[in-house]
Formats: sequence, C-alpha cells, structure tokens
Amino acid sequence: MDNKALYKISYGLYVVTSKKGKRLNGQIANTLIQVTSDPIQVAVAINKNNLTHEFIKDSKIYATSILSKTTPMEFIGKFGFKSGKDVENKFENVKYKIGRTGAPIVLDNSIAYLDIEMVNSIDVGTHTIFIGKVVDAEVIDDNEEPMTYAYYHEVKKGKSPKNAPTYIEEKKKESKESEKMDKYRCSVCGYQYNPVKGDPYSGIEPGTPFEELPDDWVCPVCGASKDQFVKEK
Amino acid sequence: MDNKALYKISYGLYVVTSKKGKRLNGQIANTLIQVTSDPIQVAVAINKNNLTHEFIKDSKIYATSILSKTTPMEFIGKFGFKSGKDVENKFENVKYKIGRTGAPIVLDNSIAYLDIEMVNSIDVGTHTIFIGKVVDAEVIDDNEEPMTYAYYHEVKKGKSPKNAPTYIEEKKKESKESEKMDKYRCSVCGYQYNPVKGDPYSGIEPGTPFEELPDDWVCPVCGASKDQFVKEK
Repeated sequence: MDNKALYKISYGLYVVTSKKGKRLNGQIANTLIQVTSDPIQVAVAINKNNLTHEFIKDSKIYATSILSKTTPMEFIGKFGFKSGKDVENKFENVKYKIGRTGAPIVLDNSIAYLDIEMVNSIDVGTHTIFIGKVVDAEVIDDNEEPMTYAYYHEVKKGKSPKNAPTYIEEKKKESKESEKMDKYRCSVCGYQYNPVKGDPYSGIEPGTPFEELPDDWVCPVCGASKDQFVKEK
Repeated sequence: MDNKALYKISYGLYVVTSKKGKRLNGQIANTLIQVTSDPIQVAVAINKNNLTHEFIKDSKIYATSILSKTTPMEFIGKFGFKSGKDVENKFENVKYKIGRTGAPIVLDNSIAYLDIEMVNSIDVGTHTIFIGKVVDAEVIDDNEEPMTYAYYHEVKKGKSPKNAPTYIEEKKKESKESEKMDKYRCSVCGYQYNPVKGDPYSGIEPGTPFEELPDDWVCPVCGASKDQFVKEK
C-alpha cells in the first residue's frame, strides 16, 4: 500500500467559518464538495479537535469562502495554523460580512462564497462530515482563478516546478544542506515539513529539525498534530 | 444567489468502479475526498440512479482510479455518459485488474488507485455519500499530473484558455454561429452544452439545439438527465 496515491486527489482551498453565540471562528479546509443539485447541498470534513467543528455543531450554520490563487501565504497561515482556541479573534483585520444564515463570510482573497445551513452530519472517526444546504452564494471575483491544493503545495514548499530550469539546482543545494535532517509528511493532508525551510508562518526558523519543533506545533495546512507526521524515506 | 459560485470549487476526475456478483461497472465522478488519515478513509457522492450506486450498495466495495491529465475524452465519455444499464460491459478493451477487495480497478489512463471497503453511507437525497476505508493504494505513474475538473472543462469545451491569443477570435466566431441557439449548463456538475459543438461523444452532431437532444440524453460528465440543465443567460 502506497499512501502517496492519496496525494493525487485534487482539491481546492477554502476558509470554513462559523460562530457560537457572538464568537466567530474559521479554519482552512480542502475537502469541500457539492453533493446534490436539487436542493444544492455541499459537504465538508472537519477535524473534531478544531474549534470550528464545535461552532458548526452548536450553531448549525457555516460558510465557505473559495480562496483565490493569489491568496498570500500569511493569510492562509492565519486561518490555517493558528487555533481559534488560542487566538481571540481570527477576523481581526480581515474583511468579512455576516451572511443570511448569520455565519461570518470571509471576503478577503475570496473569489466566491457559499452560505450554508447544516442539515445532516456523519461521524467518521477523527472528523465529522457536515452536509449543508446552500442558502446563499455569490461570485466575488470572476477573473481570478481558484487556489488549488496542488498549487498551494508547490508554492508553500517554495520549490520550482519539475519542468522549470532551476529545478535540479535547487534539489542539489537542498540535499547538501539537509543531509542530516529528515523531512516529514503530514499523513492527513500531505504537507511536507522541510527542515531547510522551517515554517516561517508559525515562526519556525529555517534549519529547525522536525524533532525540535514545539510539541504544540501543528500542520500549517490542516492543523494535524505532530504525531500525525511520518518521516519521509 | 448566484449558482456560478459552485463552479469555483476544485475537483479531480476519477473512475469509480464496483461489482455485483460477476458484473462489473464503473462511472466518472469528481467528488472524491480523503476524510480521515487514521484509518485512511475517503468519501464519494454517487447518484442513486447510477448502476455503480446499486453495485456499491450490494457489494460494499469500490475502487477509485485517479485519471491522468492526458486521458482522452473518448475514455471519459465511455465511463461518463454511457450507463452501465445500457452497456453490457464497460470494461471491454479497458486494462484493469481485480483489487484486494474484489473490486475492478481501471489501470488505463490512471496515475494512481485506491481500493476501498465501504464502512458507512449517508443518504443526502438524490445522491448517497459512501464512506470507505482504503485497504490498498498504489501510484501507477508518478510523472503524469492528475486531471482536474477545471482542465477537463476547458478541453471538453474545446475552447482556448483566456490568455491564449486565439481566445477572442473563437469567441466572435462562436457568437455568430450560435446566435439563435441557447447554451445550457448542467446544474449538477457545471458542464456546458454548446449547440455549436454538439456532443460528439454521444453522437450528437455539431449544430444540434439543446431542445432537439433525445429525451434520454444525459450529461456526458456526470450523467444528469436533460431536465437538470438550465438555460444560460
């Protein structure tokens, strides 16, 4: 069994937002799909450890903003790796509005959004799949392309595409510097932690071995904990 | 509410296969996602009218082949628009093998596959979401990129990308020829029926108005029936 087969599945990149009472929260997710057209329903899988999970369970509403290909990594980092459990308000300095359902809708870097009433859910172990009816939807920017998960990985890793002339040089340089440091792969989403690069978006300096990351460090993409990372061979 | 927001969601393109007794079947789907990593589980939404739906319900096994970007349209058409209810054996002249679960696994044009035991399902109206444990997975071709749904639409419609120099000319030419013929959009998957192009993969000649398509014509991508198409404004 080769888990790399899973990384061939294509996804977009989304901010999933919800609220509980007056508190707002949001997180990055890649598992959004449309499941029916009449009525229009979507599904998204959310980790039970995430605050957004608690909020959706409580309010039974959520929104999804479809991120633009030009979304800065800092923005994804803000929603992606910082838990709402530790940050007072992820919406500070973020442009958003309150949707028809009452859910907050992120407008910054979003090409479109869906405003959703949860109608059903299914427990699948570590995650819940939330099924919801789309009650409102708008295109914000019809000229920008959506961010794909594949593109995000390419950029996030800061590597040149295989076909680019710089590819081999980078490969060589890297293998020299990181000779004694292992790369680790997130088993949830496929994100690769490369010690040569560190994780600047959570303040991890380049040159930091995976083993020396703080215990509460989480995958900057999907929020998986350190123990869900597997050493790359 | 602008339904076009839904078309901004990113997907890949997959063949989902299953069996019932000795009969094999498969169909095109775009809604595959990984939902948990421990154990490795995926989910896919399948239309209740499709034969593959019946087969998965019966055998509780299925496989998904992740299609390559270079997959010919004829191949997608074969699995995508011809119902297994009408075709004796979709696997004729297709390279496949029987997986660990017993499900047939399509190898032609596949860069990777997952072999899956269904563990749960949820009824969402016209479709069922099948949740399954991945019991085997292999990468077949690590050099080819996966087919994305966005790319497929671009190619299928035979249009130049917006940045290509031919774009404006094509646009002009088209609008002249199809002045009196409406385009229709599949409300399930976003496929556009353009009367100027017809649907060569199901034998529909260029120049055929949507209104003159046979009643049993279905969306070549997702199998939705004619009444699920909406006129484009």
